[in-house]
Amino acid sequence: MDSPLPAGTFNGEKTSMTDVTSGIIRPVPFGLTDGDLDRALAAIAAAIGEEKVAADPDTIAEFGDPFQFPGSATNVPSAVVSPTSVEDVQAIVRLANQHRIPVWPVSRGKNNGYGGAAPQLPGSLVLSFRNMNRVLEINEELGYAIVEPGVSWFDLHDAIEAGGHRLAASVVDIGWGGVVSNTLEHGLTYLPYSLDQASHCGFEVVLPNGDLLRTGSGAMDNNPTWPLYKRGLGPTSTELFMQSNYGIVTKMGYWLMPKPEIYMPLWLQLWDDSQMPAVVDALRGLMLDGTINMRPQITNTLCMASMLTARADWYDGDGSMPDAIIDKIAKDLGLGRWLMRFALYGDESVVDYNFAKIKRRFEAISTATVVGQKHGPEAWETLPNPSERVQIGVPSMDLYKMAGWSGGDQGGHVDFSPVVPMTAKHTQAAQDLFSRMCNEAGFDYLMGILPINARSAAMVNIIPFDTQNEAQVQAAYAHAKRMVATAGKLGYGEYRAHLSFMDLAADQFGFNHHAQRRFNETIKDALDPNGIIAPGKSGIWGTRLREAGFPRK
Amino acid sequence: MDSPLPAGTFNGEKTSMTDVTSGIIRPVPFGLTDGDLDRALAAIAAAIGEEKVAADPDTIAEFGDPFQFPGSATNVPSAVVSPTSVEDVQAIVRLANQHRIPVWPVSRGKNNGYGGAAPQLPGSLVLSFRNMNRVLEINEELGYAIVEPGVSWFDLHDAIEAGGHRLAASVVDIGWGGVVSNTLEHGLTYLPYSLDQASHCGFEVVLPNGDLLRTGSGAMDNNPTWPLYKRGLGPTSTELFMQSNYGIVTKMGYWLMPKPEIYMPLWLQLWDDSQMPAVVDALRGLMLDGTINMRPQITNTLCMASMLTARADWYDGDGSMPDAIIDKIAKDLGLGRWLMRFALYGDESVVDYNFAKIKRRFEAISTATVVGQKHGPEAWETLPNPSERVQIGVPSMDLYKMAGWSGGDQGGHVDFSPVVPMTAKHTQAAQDLFSRMCNEAGFDYLMGILPINARSAAMVNIIPFDTQNEAQVQAAYAHAKRMVATAGKLGYGEYRAHLSFMDLAADQFGFNHHAQRRFNETIKDALDPNGIIAPGKSGIWGTRLREAGFPRK
Repeated sequence: MDSPLPAGTFNGEKTSMTDVTSGIIRPVPFGLTDGDLDRALAAIAAAIGEEKVAADPDTIAEFGDPFQFPGSATNVPSAVVSPTSVEDVQAIVRLANQHRIPVWPVSRGKNNGYGGAAPQLPGSLVLSFRNMNRVLEINEELGYAIVEPGVSWFDLHDAIEAGGHRLAASVVDIGWGGVVSNTLEHGLTYLPYSLDQASHCGFEVVLPNGDLLRTGSGAMDNNPTWPLYKRGLGPTSTELFMQSNYGIVTKMGYWLMPKPEIYMPLWLQLWDDSQMPAVVDALRGLMLDGTINMRPQITNTLCMASMLTARADWYDGDGSMPDAIIDKIAKDLGLGRWLMRFALYGDESVVDYNFAKIKRRFEAISTATVVGQKHGPEAWETLPNPSERVQIGVPSMDLYKMAGWSGGDQGGHVDFSPVVPMTAKHTQAAQDLFSRMCNEAGFDYLMGILPINARSAAMVNIIPFDTQNEAQVQAAYAHAKRMVATAGKLGYGEYRAHLSFMDLAADQFGFNHHAQRRFNETIKDALDPNGIIAPGKSGIWGTRLREAGFPRK
Repeated sequence: MDSPLPAGTFNGEKTSMTDVTSGIIRPVPFGLTDGDLDRALAAIAAAIGEEKVAADPDTIAEFGDPFQFPGSATNVPSAVVSPTSVEDVQAIVRLANQHRIPVWPVSRGKNNGYGGAAPQLPGSLVLSFRNMNRVLEINEELGYAIVEPGVSWFDLHDAIEAGGHRLAASVVDIGWGGVVSNTLEHGLTYLPYSLDQASHCGFEVVLPNGDLLRTGSGAMDNNPTWPLYKRGLGPTSTELFMQSNYGIVTKMGYWLMPKPEIYMPLWLQLWDDSQMPAVVDALRGLMLDGTINMRPQITNTLCMASMLTARADWYDGDGSMPDAIIDKIAKDLGLGRWLMRFALYGDESVVDYNFAKIKRRFEAISTATVVGQKHGPEAWETLPNPSERVQIGVPSMDLYKMAGWSGGDQGGHVDFSPVVPMTAKHTQAAQDLFSRMCNEAGFDYLMGILPINARSAAMVNIIPFDTQNEAQVQAAYAHAKRMVATAGKLGYGEYRAHLSFMDLAADQFGFNHHAQRRFNETIKDALDPNGIIAPGKSGIWGTRLREAGFPRK
């Protein structure tokens, strides 16, 4: 649900970076002096080329969190380095160790709603992969691509089309983000391979000491199963480099689905809010038996309305929007109280059979309707509805409005995304809690339910605010943090945490007095003794910073 | 392909353990004295109960490799400890650290063809989970079980049936092995969830320091998605504990498939050996598009014949069996030169459609035929063909004859199992190499091709021998080792290695001058500084033993 402001707004006005762009602040990483930082940047520039290191205010401003109150961001980078080769990355990491300068890697820098491109530790060197954006290989026979970390969803889609390959990539809603970074963040895409976030196969990783590792079968020279078989011999480290700070991924295998005979995007509308749990139970059954074999997106009225309109179009009161207005929006926009977008893929006979089964099963719920239309491959690239294009691997920027719900062009949002069992009981209990907390905090309740697989779902709470309204921004982040802590006590953990409360989100994983933290820190210290890769990522800090009191409250 | 001797033969005659059972040898772990070992065992007995520690010859003999030449085994345990609780495991591990005694965990001890229950390092304490064999939970609504590491395939199947659950577990051919140990070894089962060896979700692990970790969502107290969502927040360590020696898994979530309306076991027969590559290409297409959504097992004539008959029934010459005899077996047993067993699951209409498609696609290959029969749930438990029961989750011991191909009741086999891309070209090249090497070494060529997923397949070379024939045993292991090294140079790595050449198999993974080994050793030393968990597993040795010159040639 990566839905930032239009690029023009942010790039043009740099609302969140006033202090930096005016040149008043240059943050220096913890423990270093201005001179140390200068020497570190000079050494890196000397090693890989001056043109790859930028510390000017415009560049710095590009790599922040666009959804902060202007001037309030503290986690601002000191410089941005843009390698063009794996060797560059290795050189950067080795010099970062020598100079103790933290490095925060980003692919395209579009992690909006979870902190954008900004680093956790002020003054970190952002390592941007925008200039390493080649699709290195597409194999049609075996259905995979190998990509560099700067490849965007657009780049991958375009490379598939340019090669005339009868393959589809599982993509996100908004095409400007990075394939590798989204994968590393456990990001959710929509085609069949995205279930269990399992599209990737094989990483190449620059380790914190500059060594180069290939995971899975890639650990063997010239092993052709590197992008085919997820493991090798012995323990598999691939998942260890996701949502982590143990290394920097420089190549990734990504599975591509052969184009099916028929693609049939489907829409379920539900008019009675209280029947949502019944939809969840029916969906679980249809996913468990394989009838629905992709990631549906289930949104409540306000979540869907935020992609189409602005709050001010409907209501100008403070506090949560009254239910009567939500009902009016549901009817006026013809959305229903819940809208599920999903799809079938396959041979026409099987699609027909499954559609009839799905329709029968869901329409047993009294206010639910299911509609859809079949399309052959010639139609997919130009389907008028962007949601319908996304589900067959055609990315766009058309679903890009959400952040404007409150605050228009100056709107922002912060997301809180716990995972719950995909049952009526759990989704209802979670919803009761989240909507009540939204009411209490005076925010609208925007909910997107995204199944991880047939058994569990991420419940994405989108908390919208006006970035120009300082009190509202602060209230939104405070509200999100309360939800993290409250949900954590009930055993619901985030699948992905906003930078501003990564430590808090990680704190919730407290089994056996935080065994996971002890384990993560042991691994961190073994691989990255100087703690230079992405300090604070997922609540993991190296010894040097832990001993200095990080994370600071 | 776990196909050991009948239990009676081995248990009754203890062929491979003569020296130990006669009491002549008690191996002592490297670096310890007899007295050190006595003190270690006494301390463990005092902590968890004397009845849980056994060092008598009969028990020792049970935990060896049954497929060694009698008396030749050097990797014999000093004692066997059988914990009954997680706390027992923690106590054992803590005392093992104090006393520097290596611990080799096994579930049921049936890893035959890959080394059996035997440890890598002589004198290791085998930790047997046979007395921790409870199915802790079965959830029908969400389709999972949580099991202890001693649960066998029979135990899991029986618990599902006893509870009346409409669920099926993906199982192996021979039911006496352990669900957890097979999973940890990247073992291949046959139902849909087994693709990518992905049936497991969430581990509980006793770390080498005795700490208790839960992976994925289990890292949060009372998180109900522990067996549902494979990840948590931050890096996921689950796969790090597979084929590794970084910890001891004490609980595991295992997904269970809802019983489909129809199960249709299928058989493909191919009469012309040279058409096998065309079958592979057709199969890849049908798996990529989801028509076949489970793990087929493709066996050549001799592999299948070894499950039904003995070599001596057909031929008594030395060297590889001549092609004319193989052809005769193919015809006399009605097997064909290749036999593929596979299956469809689902609603009857979809099964019918897919069967017609499969038949059409494969029978375009001139000597291929596809047959099958549909069955509803009431028939599954008692289908007459054990292969057909296996593919719907009903384990047995009926497919248990393979080791007897050469040597009858005294037969054994060693398996070499590289992974190759699932293309005609690669499987043909690999077959040409393997069959030529078999001919040169004078062994029959028994091949089982097991797709890992739609894109890659394990090619399991079963090398049969008579355990009573010392020269033949030695020749078989030497042949296997040659194949490991030769295939490794071509970029084909083993998915699972025999104990006798784990180090050699790991050596083949040499990308960037063995970056994976450096990485694995860094993790090993951080988690297990005394190197007490399963030294040598997957070629990973702790510092203490590396510095002492392990692995020894």
